[in-house]
Amino acid sequence: MSATQLLSNLLLCLSLIFQCSFAVSPFGKIIPRFPSPLIHPENYQPSLSNDQSGNNGLYKTRYFTQILDHFSYRPESYQTFQQRYLINSTFWGGPRRNAPIFVYTGNEGDIEWFAQNTGFMFETAPHFNALLVFIEHRYYGKSMPFGGKKEVAYSNASMLGYLSSTQALADYATLITDLKKNLTAEHSPVVVFGGSCGGMLAAWFRLKYPHIAIGALSSSAPILDFFNVTSPYIFNDIITRDFRSESKNCYKVIKRSWQKIEVTAKQQGGLEILRKSFRLCKNFKDAEYLTGWLETALVYAAMTDYPTPSNFLTPLPAYPIRQMCKAIDDPSKGDDDFAKLYGAANIYYNYSGGVSCFDLMDDSDPHGLSGWGWQACTEMVMPIDGNRETSIFPAYKYNYTDTVSSCAVDSSVVSRPTWIPIEFGGHDIRRTLRRFGSNIIFFNGLRDPWSGGGVLKSISKSIVAIVAEKGAHHVDLRYSTSEDPKWLQDVRKKEIKIISGWISQYYLDLAK
Amino acid sequence: MSATQLLSNLLLCLSLIFQCSFAVSPFGKIIPRFPSPLIHPENYQPSLSNDQSGNNGLYKTRYFTQILDHFSYRPESYQTFQQRYLINSTFWGGPRRNAPIFVYTGNEGDIEWFAQNTGFMFETAPHFNALLVFIEHRYYGKSMPFGGKKEVAYSNASMLGYLSSTQALADYATLITDLKKNLTAEHSPVVVFGGSCGGMLAAWFRLKYPHIAIGALSSSAPILDFFNVTSPYIFNDIITRDFRSESKNCYKVIKRSWQKIEVTAKQQGGLEILRKSFRLCKNFKDAEYLTGWLETALVYAAMTDYPTPSNFLTPLPAYPIRQMCKAIDDPSKGDDDFAKLYGAANIYYNYSGGVSCFDLMDDSDPHGLSGWGWQACTEMVMPIDGNRETSIFPAYKYNYTDTVSSCAVDSSVVSRPTWIPIEFGGHDIRRTLRRFGSNIIFFNGLRDPWSGGGVLKSISKSIVAIVAEKGAHHVDLRYSTSEDPKWLQDVRKKEIKIISGWISQYYLDLAK
Repeated sequence: MSATQLLSNLLLCLSLIFQCSFAVSPFGKIIPRFPSPLIHPENYQPSLSNDQSGNNGLYKTRYFTQILDHFSYRPESYQTFQQRYLINSTFWGGPRRNAPIFVYTGNEGDIEWFAQNTGFMFETAPHFNALLVFIEHRYYGKSMPFGGKKEVAYSNASMLGYLSSTQALADYATLITDLKKNLTAEHSPVVVFGGSCGGMLAAWFRLKYPHIAIGALSSSAPILDFFNVTSPYIFNDIITRDFRSESKNCYKVIKRSWQKIEVTAKQQGGLEILRKSFRLCKNFKDAEYLTGWLETALVYAAMTDYPTPSNFLTPLPAYPIRQMCKAIDDPSKGDDDFAKLYGAANIYYNYSGGVSCFDLMDDSDPHGLSGWGWQACTEMVMPIDGNRETSIFPAYKYNYTDTVSSCAVDSSVVSRPTWIPIEFGGHDIRRTLRRFGSNIIFFNGLRDPWSGGGVLKSISKSIVAIVAEKGAHHVDLRYSTSEDPKWLQDVRKKEIKIISGWISQYYLDLAK
Repeated sequence: MSATQLLSNLLLCLSLIFQCSFAVSPFGKIIPRFPSPLIHPENYQPSLSNDQSGNNGLYKTRYFTQILDHFSYRPESYQTFQQRYLINSTFWGGPRRNAPIFVYTGNEGDIEWFAQNTGFMFETAPHFNALLVFIEHRYYGKSMPFGGKKEVAYSNASMLGYLSSTQALADYATLITDLKKNLTAEHSPVVVFGGSCGGMLAAWFRLKYPHIAIGALSSSAPILDFFNVTSPYIFNDIITRDFRSESKNCYKVIKRSWQKIEVTAKQQGGLEILRKSFRLCKNFKDAEYLTGWLETALVYAAMTDYPTPSNFLTPLPAYPIRQMCKAIDDPSKGDDDFAKLYGAANIYYNYSGGVSCFDLMDDSDPHGLSGWGWQACTEMVMPIDGNRETSIFPAYKYNYTDTVSSCAVDSSVVSRPTWIPIEFGGHDIRRTLRRFGSNIIFFNGLRDPWSGGGVLKSISKSIVAIVAEKGAHHVDLRYSTSEDPKWLQDVRKKEIKIISGWISQYYLDLAK
């Protein structure tokens, strides 16, 4: 495998694992490829701390006894696990008024992290008198099968094999049905929300369980990022476009730096030059880790190129790409490309300051995202690693076979790259959904590389695309701030208006 | 358990197992409860015989390598089996014309039997230039996992546990997608067809896989026959109504006979009286078998109360209930109720003659239906065993707990009676599908007891109910005959017109 291919494969791993920076073997061993974007997990402060019962001012923590395998009837299928969900009933109008229930369909990580980054639901709940429920995805956070311990649940493919999106959707269907029954709220309309992977699940949930959710707000959901549906070049094309849009020089400097790093690494004492240039810790010993670390910064900066200061993956200024490009374009750096790149990386990895050296071997996972490596290599096989000659990353001709074989996690557990489009569709989605289904909002921000696999055009009167040219990864779902630009305020207003329409229509139908 | 309850439980088993007359333990051991309606399997002649390659004039036999578990990624999930399907391309317009593909979503039995009883597809294929495909349901006929042998696949719950409707639907999705690719017919519209259990699968397939099938003809599909969705009394209410509609005396004689049988059986020599009265073979030794055998005749006569002579479950005259009631009303029998009942049973079980004695211990299963017992006791838990005081069967107050506990197949594998409505909906179906989904025809004949759990009113412009007052179980799908009444001809014409509309619309959309 050439260095370029290796780089591309690293990038593939990076890209495949969403906000996760680890590739995971089928047996749960974490293989550090490049460090977490949250290089200093101690910097991460959940905005809220829970009391002993798992309650805080924002939500209460509850558990539901969930069945392990919804689709088979083997004795093993009947095992159960405790699935965590968070609930806030402060604003709920209650069952007698059939007041709505807003459910977040949990992503590939700790549900508290997603709940705390989905201010949109908390902010709109009073308007709708809505109950808020955030359900954690199986095999993430505290929702671990096989006794609740991650090291057991992830210990081998026989145990980890129940981790799949279809099982997760069935979990949500079962939990919501049970919860509504317990609240005697059978007639309360349910609207599902989700961003990124959770957005895919929200859209699919509305399509597969229309009898449970009356509509879905699916934010930044790359439901078309699958084999033969979307170009494998578009993900990195968008990142390239993002950086180019800030400055052509910024793009050029980054583009030429990969080869410079490679050449420097091969020189006598080259690794030490790199280590010092990028203020890396003493355990640094492989240039590929540096490349991966820089690529991570570019990908995640593009995803989180929010218009206001944020702290989703890591503390960042408003429009971080612009700031990173400013660092690169800084005339005081002369032609020292490494100094320029370092300046950009320092914005992404050390915006709040205080890092003495960057530890590229750090494999901590503060948001509990590591299961995504498994999913990305079994069912969620997204071909997004192609790089054209013009890419900001090294050119790489997309190769189906390479992708699948680099994803072979086990001799018996191999990728099923064609499965997701069979199960959920994707090909000719416009023709399929034009006359089938209703009540889905697909939001995408075009700065976000995942928008390449998103639904960017409205399909029917009630399957609607909202596209924000300057938006990034599920920016609509974040807490509003006083600095939010008008386009973002408008997006949220539009979403609220559409959801209001679904609920009104539901009540009219209910009264019939 | 009282005799009445026992009777009712027997009836439950009878009812639950559709056209199948056996209850199956979780370990595959067949427990004979009452004999097969096809008491003399040697009488059953498939209308066609296959050559060594499995071909005959009607279709060719093919096999597809299918994955065992679509929804999990355990090493065990990757096992495969050979799934049988039948194909007829005589009338197909081919991929260049994007000619349609009509797929039968196989029921709980040998697919050849269903194909040969679905003349509607063969008769309409020339009009549509359609390719015909009949896919066998996993664990039935020759589509056996674990090496193709039923005795292995049914040998324990760990092996049989992959038998479920969700797995079957995913089989169909996978096979159809692969077949279309191999035929380079990706743009050919697929319409799915099915009757009874196959009709449920067809409707659910359209709802869950709209990207694969543009529409579904779902005939006599009791998709609402689940807990808290439909009254548990309606199934037997309809049978009662059927017999009463022919003659009040017929209903009365049958109704009072259950007690007479019970009383006679308790007398000294009573069993011998019963044996002789009903011309039973010498191995007869339990009156409950006789009761079950008579109930079977009533249930299946109601299901197959076709307007022309037929040979679906067994050879029968046109409108068999009318003939059975004529036998019961026969004045020459005086007040000999057993002679009257025997006359009715003889029409159902021996219309073509030649039976020397009825062997109630015969547990043969010529159509390979025995897996339904497992399904009916795991996921397809249909509460249909209630009998009002007015029922033609002994009164039985429906009891949820009894139903579930009588269905407990194993200490670890228990019924999941709430699952089907969670997975596929059912509650408030009109409200759900009024603004979601399209292109489904629900046909029901009101003579058919399964129509009680069917969709009897149109839900939207394109989710349409067709109801035939005099129709029986999926009569629309049968071969036409020169004696078909006008209402039946009209039903088929209407179905063809609707399906034509779907296909035309699809081509218009494709051309856009």
